Amino acid sequence: MNERTLITLLQRVRDGETSIEKALEQLRLLPFEVLESARLDHHRSLRTGLPEVVFGENKTVEQLIDILTALLHTPSVVLATRVAEDKATRVREQLDGLTYHPTARILTGNEHLASLGVNRGAVVIVTAGTSDLPVAEEARLTLESCGHPVQTIHDVGVAGLHRILAHARQLQQASVIIVVAGMDGALPSVVAGMTAAPVIGVPTSIGYGTGAGGYAALLGMLNSCSPGLAVVNIDNGFGAACMAAAINRRT
Amino acid sequence: MNERTLITLLQRVRDGETSIEKALEQLRLLPFEVLESARLDHHRSLRTGLPEVVFGENKTVEQLIDILTALLHTPSVVLATRVAEDKATRVREQLDGLTYHPTARILTGNEHLASLGVNRGAVVIVTAGTSDLPVAEEARLTLESCGHPVQTIHDVGVAGLHRILAHARQLQQASVIIVVAGMDGALPSVVAGMTAAPVIGVPTSIGYGTGAGGYAALLGMLNSCSPGLAVVNIDNGFGAACMAAAINRRT
Amino acid sequence: MNERTLITLLQRVRDGETSIEKALEQLRLLPFEVLESARLDHHRSLRTGLPEVVFGENKTVEQLIDILTALLHTPSVVLATRVAEDKATRVREQLDGLTYHPTARILTGNEHLASLGVNRGAVVIVTAGTSDLPVAEEARLTLESCGHPVQTIHDVGVAGLHRILAHARQLQQASVIIVVAGMDGALPSVVAGMTAAPVIGVPTSIGYGTGAGGYAALLGMLNSCSPGLAVVNIDNGFGAACMAAAINRRT
Amino acid sequence: MNERTLITLLQRVRDGETSIEKALEQLRLLPFEVLESARLDHHRSLRTGLPEVVFGENKTVEQLIDILTALLHTPSVVLATRVAEDKATRVREQLDGLTYHPTARILTGNEHLASLGVNRGAVVIVTAGTSDLPVAEEARLTLESCGHPVQTIHDVGVAGLHRILAHARQLQQASVIIVVAGMDGALPSVVAGMTAAPVIGVPTSIGYGTGAGGYAALLGMLNSCSPGLAVVNIDNGFGAACMAAAINRRT
Amino acid sequence: MNERTLITLLQRVRDGETSIEKALEQLRLLPFEVLESARLDHHRSLRTGLPEVVFGENKTVEQLIDILTALLHTPSVVLATRVAEDKATRVREQLDGLTYHPTARILTGNEHLASLGVNRGAVVIVTAGTSDLPVAEEARLTLESCGHPVQTIHDVGVAGLHRILAHARQLQQASVIIVVAGMDGALPSVVAGMTAAPVIGVPTSIGYGTGAGGYAALLGMLNSCSPGLAVVNIDNGFGAACMAAAINRRT
Amino acid sequence: MNERTLITLLQRVRDGETSIEKALEQLRLLPFEVLESARLDHHRSLRTGLPEVVFGENKTVEQLIDILTALLHTPSVVLATRVAEDKATRVREQLDGLTYHPTARILTGNEHLASLGVNRGAVVIVTAGTSDLPVAEEARLTLESCGHPVQTIHDVGVAGLHRILAHARQLQQASVIIVVAGMDGALPSVVAGMTAAPVIGVPTSIGYGTGAGGYAALLGMLNSCSPGLAVVNIDNGFGAACMAAAINRRT
Amino acid sequence: MNERTLITLLQRVRDGETSIEKALEQLRLLPFEVLESARLDHHRSLRTGLPEVVFGENKTVEQLIDILTALLHTPSVVLATRVAEDKATRVREQLDGLTYHPTARILTGNEHLASLGVNRGAVVIVTAGTSDLPVAEEARLTLESCGHPVQTIHDVGVAGLHRILAHARQLQQASVIIVVAGMDGALPSVVAGMTAAPVIGVPTSIGYGTGAGGYAALLGMLNSCSPGLAVVNIDNGFGAACMAAAINRRT
Amino acid sequence: MNERTLITLLQRVRDGETSIEKALEQLRLLPFEVLESARLDHHRSLRTGLPEVVFGENKTVEQLIDILTALLHTPSVVLATRVAEDKATRVREQLDGLTYHPTARILTGNEHLASLGVNRGAVVIVTAGTSDLPVAEEARLTLESCGHPVQTIHDVGVAGLHRILAHARQLQQASVIIVVAGMDGALPSVVAGMTAAPVIGVPTSIGYGTGAGGYAALLGMLNSCSPGLAVVNIDNGFGAACMAAAINRRT
Repeated sequence: MNERTLITLLQRVRDGETSIEKALEQLRLLPFEVLESARLDHHRSLRTGLPEVVFGENKTVEQLIDILTALLHTPSVVLATRVAEDKATRVREQLDGLTYHPTARILTGNEHLASLGVNRGAVVIVTAGTSDLPVAEEARLTLESCGHPVQTIHDVGVAGLHRILAHARQLQQASVIIVVAGMDGALPSVVAGMTAAPVIGVPTSIGYGTGAGGYAALLGMLNSCSPGLAVVNIDNGFGAACMAAAINRRT
Repeated sequence: MNERTLITLLQRVRDGETSIEKALEQLRLLPFEVLESARLDHHRSLRTGLPEVVFGENKTVEQLIDILTALLHTPSVVLATRVAEDKATRVREQLDGLTYHPTARILTGNEHLASLGVNRGAVVIVTAGTSDLPVAEEARLTLESCGHPVQTIHDVGVAGLHRILAHARQLQQASVIIVVAGMDGALPSVVAGMTAAPVIGVPTSIGYGTGAGGYAALLGMLNSCSPGLAVVNIDNGFGAACMAAAINRRT
Repeated sequence: MNERTLITLLQRVRDGETSIEKALEQLRLLPFEVLESARLDHHRSLRTGLPEVVFGENKTVEQLIDILTALLHTPSVVLATRVAEDKATRVREQLDGLTYHPTARILTGNEHLASLGVNRGAVVIVTAGTSDLPVAEEARLTLESCGHPVQTIHDVGVAGLHRILAHARQLQQASVIIVVAGMDGALPSVVAGMTAAPVIGVPTSIGYGTGAGGYAALLGMLNSCSPGLAVVNIDNGFGAACMAAAINRRT
Repeated sequence: MNERTLITLLQRVRDGETSIEKALEQLRLLPFEVLESARLDHHRSLRTGLPEVVFGENKTVEQLIDILTALLHTPSVVLATRVAEDKATRVREQLDGLTYHPTARILTGNEHLASLGVNRGAVVIVTAGTSDLPVAEEARLTLESCGHPVQTIHDVGVAGLHRILAHARQLQQASVIIVVAGMDGALPSVVAGMTAAPVIGVPTSIGYGTGAGGYAALLGMLNSCSPGLAVVNIDNGFGAACMAAAINRRT
Repeated sequence: MNERTLITLLQRVRDGETSIEKALEQLRLLPFEVLESARLDHHRSLRTGLPEVVFGENKTVEQLIDILTALLHTPSVVLATRVAEDKATRVREQLDGLTYHPTARILTGNEHLASLGVNRGAVVIVTAGTSDLPVAEEARLTLESCGHPVQTIHDVGVAGLHRILAHARQLQQASVIIVVAGMDGALPSVVAGMTAAPVIGVPTSIGYGTGAGGYAALLGMLNSCSPGLAVVNIDNGFGAACMAAAINRRT
Repeated sequence: MNERTLITLLQRVRDGETSIEKALEQLRLLPFEVLESARLDHHRSLRTGLPEVVFGENKTVEQLIDILTALLHTPSVVLATRVAEDKATRVREQLDGLTYHPTARILTGNEHLASLGVNRGAVVIVTAGTSDLPVAEEARLTLESCGHPVQTIHDVGVAGLHRILAHARQLQQASVIIVVAGMDGALPSVVAGMTAAPVIGVPTSIGYGTGAGGYAALLGMLNSCSPGLAVVNIDNGFGAACMAAAINRRT
Repeated sequence: MNERTLITLLQRVRDGETSIEKALEQLRLLPFEVLESARLDHHRSLRTGLPEVVFGENKTVEQLIDILTALLHTPSVVLATRVAEDKATRVREQLDGLTYHPTARILTGNEHLASLGVNRGAVVIVTAGTSDLPVAEEARLTLESCGHPVQTIHDVGVAGLHRILAHARQLQQASVIIVVAGMDGALPSVVAGMTAAPVIGVPTSIGYGTGAGGYAALLGMLNSCSPGLAVVNIDNGFGAACMAAAINRRT
Repeated sequence: MNERTLITLLQRVRDGETSIEKALEQLRLLPFEVLESARLDHHRSLRTGLPEVVFGENKTVEQLIDILTALLHTPSVVLATRVAEDKATRVREQLDGLTYHPTARILTGNEHLASLGVNRGAVVIVTAGTSDLPVAEEARLTLESCGHPVQTIHDVGVAGLHRILAHARQLQQASVIIVVAGMDGALPSVVAGMTAAPVIGVPTSIGYGTGAGGYAALLGMLNSCSPGLAVVNIDNGFGAACMAAAINRRT
């Protein structure tokens, strides 16, 4: 039952063609039937300022081309995450208007349609080491695509504390902070202890031995004593950006 | 080297009693020495609006009495979390002015000093089942103690979807949402799909078999497809409240 | 918006007091608001034949008395699972009409309201050892409370194959089979290889060393080569009964 | 001792050529010896309606050709699961009469011998995302090969609840439902809360970080609060189909 | 169908009262029906020399008394393992003829019926520390109850290698060796490197931190480079004794 | 200090050239110094009947050629395990006299030097599925190389019990039994329940989902209720053969 | 063969009563036989400066009294670790001369026999929180009992970096540093980045949710990027002290 | 604020151009700002004697060339660890002055600048098997690059105890010992029991089945009963070398 059907039903009630009882019976099923797929999704897009995002990891080249072709015709920034370099090359051979960002493994399109949100604070993205860059770049591109200003502080792991301490003022003035770290995942604890801004920790799968896969980093972040810190899945730069956007939207 | 010493040093430089070189040498150690414990902590308290909080789980009755006696003399709300009922009783036998909240396992004092933050949005706390109440109450009391208005929606797990759907409007108007859930931890995914507000998931250790300890709930939340969701440690109602306060502070 | 409000709205549309547009706006929120808690639950109860069930593990004596008092006044069998013996004693001191089943740790009431489903096949419950009895009894009482005939075969673990082989005919004639086993959890594989009936495996936490907690049994069942076998959570006799009831309902 | 020998023995008893005692002694070993491999397997095939199925994952091309050649000469549908594309190509170069289904990674033959079971209800297969398709297709092809009608509902994960809610009526009319989901595995909980039909959850290994391998999805399903849900191994679309067939056979 | 029925059937065939065909039909079910529980169990007891053993951990006092009363009337040694001290006391208050071994947590009876196997080699039981004694004693009592001579070497962990080296000759002359060790579980590796006798490793749950539960010891033993070493479950002294008895029986 | 030095020392004591005290001092260090590497290894080889075995997995082609060249000149069977096919090809291109067994991934040489042990019982090797063959073949070749007669029973998993039951007599007459099984690892339990011979379980890494890696099979075997069963590491066919040889050596 | 026997053997060689060959034969067994338990242990005690230490956790009161009575008569400091308070009370009721340290759960005796090592550097023990005190005290008492000077820095977790930074000079001048931390275990990383002294990390089991048991802290420490950091088992204050003593002994 | 700014500030205070109050305000921010990155790093390099080390695992060829070009111009040994052979080849094609060590996977440069520390004791590196060589070589090259003398003892696993016993004297004279072992990780326990020197255990990922990844070896080392043993991450030869250097620096 879509909106059109609903209007017809109400008209028939108004015109006495359908009894209250009969209308009631149909409306009882409404909760399960009335919602058109597209509408709610559009609502979410409007509310969060996030563009339509395609998760590319398990999609074939053909599937990507189909979806992206359609999205490029909408008046909205286009973003496809987790697209391996060879897949991206093959997509771009057949489809114009896409830019590939190899570190972030992201394809973007319609970039001119992104507009910076007015009066939004800055999202600061911090990384512990250079190996954490791909995840940080995934977060940065996602945020910038939906109009959030981003600042980055790279390679400031806790083995040399002075490196992060040097950025104290910037951290204190941030609207939201995303901290990307592998290995022991200790950096978000330290950052959250230096600022009142909400901190989103992103553990990365960078590490070896007991650190492989990112579980050590995840556990480190979940068990931090610092207040004002929450965590997303390992390597989930996109998820961290979504949380940051949800927070920053309202600042 | 505290502030007093620093002033003296500067006076001696001004008065020509200490050379620039000698002063420089002392100041080089400053990064490691100058910070008095209390100052930074006070800063954090001011910035976050969080009161001084005592983690009571591993403290003895004697330790609790010592610390709480001191805190009750400061002009600030007092909060001690994870205090078992029998410990709380023994503390209150020897110390006036404390209220015990048995579900939340929290001792509070100086409650009259809490003042509602002006123009702050509401933090909505949602629970999946009645067994999740202690964690939710820990979050609620922490937030209210530092002046954040809280609304609660209880017992709306996904086995009966209509229960949470009935609160859609409230969820869409929230400033921040904390969702507390054990078992499969599916509720935060559903809530995050219904709102643009940032959602903080708190897995609880409620469950049995493979759900014991809360790992199933934690994994469920970390792997949610819904955007705008981040997670804190299992049973960490206090940590969720701190993250919510950090977000809501700026609304 | 409950059913009463909906009728009023429709009446106002019929009587021309509310415009189609205005009604449409209110109905758009309907999917999230119209469902009253009780209705859908009653639906589920009718559909599945399962009585109202209270999960007693984390409930206080006071909470149990409140809920059970209310349920005893409904025209339906009452079932509270995972009620420890001392809690059950205290509940029954204050509330008449309840029977306690210590092995199953279940409180039942209004048992006379259970009526055997017509033309239903038998659910056969099989256990590997005597220690698996509490879980099997939880399943049996749940099924019998909603009118499913149950047969039991106890203590037929695979260390002595002849024991289960002796029941081949009974297994082949079952409508559904629940197999409860701890330790290595091998029994459901063997049973599923002997019958065409659907088999529900319930791993139990019976075991020690690497078998403690029931994970070995769970993994054994999930990795069975026998076709026609699915699994529920460790010690989840109630869940197995619900699955069996859903299957048997249609036979 | 095969059937022939048994008849001979009985004839000799009848004819007085073998004493009761001597026959008894031989029959004591019967439980371990009399069963011919083939017979019981045929029994199972007849009972479950499942065709002879070859698990192709660890078989060489030569082994597959040998087995499939033999099976194609039997009057029965042929099914080989988990056959990688390159292996399938090499098998089909040397063996006629096989069709390869790349998404499901299944080889089928003698498809004309499958006949729809009379009066059987529909098995509804639901997927959370497009990446879950291979597992769902493995289930669908298995079921259809043995005569069970299948309906599919794809890409209805819980991040957008309206998508699954739109299929409520179809879910309520299903005979059995298979829900295939990776990531947080929350979809089966939601589905089981919407229907009285038995639900079989299939966790998939789709996911990354803590979701990699499918354990998060498995735990989510095992810890669901929804009644009427059981689970099979990660990615085990074939096993889910077998369970569904065992249930649906009797409807 | 028990032995009595089988004889009757054969008699009827002999006497022409039952046709071959009809007898055949009944015998087809024989594999699943003919075995009486008791017979095979008696066989096993005779073959292995193991007495009837009761696993006491999850049995009530009443259950223990029932079973042990029955067993004490059989002409066989009686053994109940994993009987807590208080349970044992209550059993012995009501039942004569039982001895309790507190370290091994074993109840024995009819000890005079154990007879030393002729020409059997010695089973040597080695422990790493005094905390491993209960598991070692469970193994020793089990073995001695069924007539295997046992030698013990206690408290010879690898932190002081000279301690185990001093027993090299005894280890080289053993028929079978059981090595009981917690913590790092390194002792079985060292012992297996010093002897040609088969070595059975028993990890114990003695340890703390990462050693708690015995997993570190188990993994250490499973990954030993020493040839001639196999492992049983954590704390499974009884299982090690059964394996040793199976090996030693044939020496 | 080697044997030569020791003789010299004793001669000097005898001849009065070294005092008792001085000799004593040197001998105190003896435990750590006197053993020449080669001697003890030769002892072990003699005692166990195992040939010199090379673990090939992490060795380069060059290392393999060096070691095998040397071993081929000794009067002993040569065995190199876990040699990948391409490595084996390259070794054999440069070194004559080696045979490669691709299923077992073993290189053998000097096979004519293996002689069947007199009066030894048979080691029976049982597999659950065809995918378990490589591990079973590693065990078989190892045992045959050191003169133990081997019998094999393949593809008799518990999903069709009749298959293993048909071999009951052979299992009861075995000297030792090795059971190789992946997936749920249930077969060793069933076998151990059918025989008095010692059973060595070898879990294999065959499986998928929760069965991947072989942990489900390992746990299944460790938690078996059947007496007379011990376990080696996942996929460790060589280790199982060593344990079987140690047991069978004495029969 | 003890030292007495060895002297006799040498005397007989000297006196011509035993031939070189015969003596050689006996000495060949020497490596496995000659070492008396006590001697090597005394050696270790002298070398490491560690007193005789009793691990009290799994010992009964009677066992503790027996061992400690003996040790109190040796001219050496006595130390029993992991003695629960009630056990300690019962031991001290029957045995004079022991002091109980409740936080460290250690019994000491003969304390006057400890003498401070000359010219040894200081071992600095750092804790993250007050809950880590018991483990730190176990380390401190162990070290002081064998003459190592100890300094302590308590409650300096990374949530307030200024607290540990204030001790930079002390950390830079330490001979060895032990850092005791639960939760995220981030403190040792920070400390090791501030000093050139070797740092020993001790994870503690303090924490809840995913931090329970100390695994998060252990993983954090193992995956630290800071050079000069090694780790001991969870809660192993005694082991950290032994490592520190081994390092400091040589300074 | 760098050193230059600080001097200017002090001069202005001295010259009366800046008030005490204003200077104080600026200095309050000093702890977070004054440290230049480079300075502290240089300090650490001087203190530890470790050269600038590049972790090569996740760096691209271009990144490696940039960093190494810069480092080769400093008066210091250059070390890049975890550089795969093909990457090393491509780096050396474009950059002179580097040596590649394939077993250790290390690139070194400026080797002539390494000078042996005066009066330093020897670091002894022990391996259990030849597969542990890469990790041991990473440790050796790191130590030698910063002037620590290294001795190696290879292939002395505990399956043949005599092999390690033969090196007792060398172990007792070591300054520090690094023991590298995979599989069961038992060797460090044995070594630590033979010496008073501090022992650093390095578990390796060598192993299969339950030993894969190195967790069994790690757990074995963490649970050792031998005093004076600490552990680094799996495969972390570089970390072990850093700890050894920190200890040996002071000898």
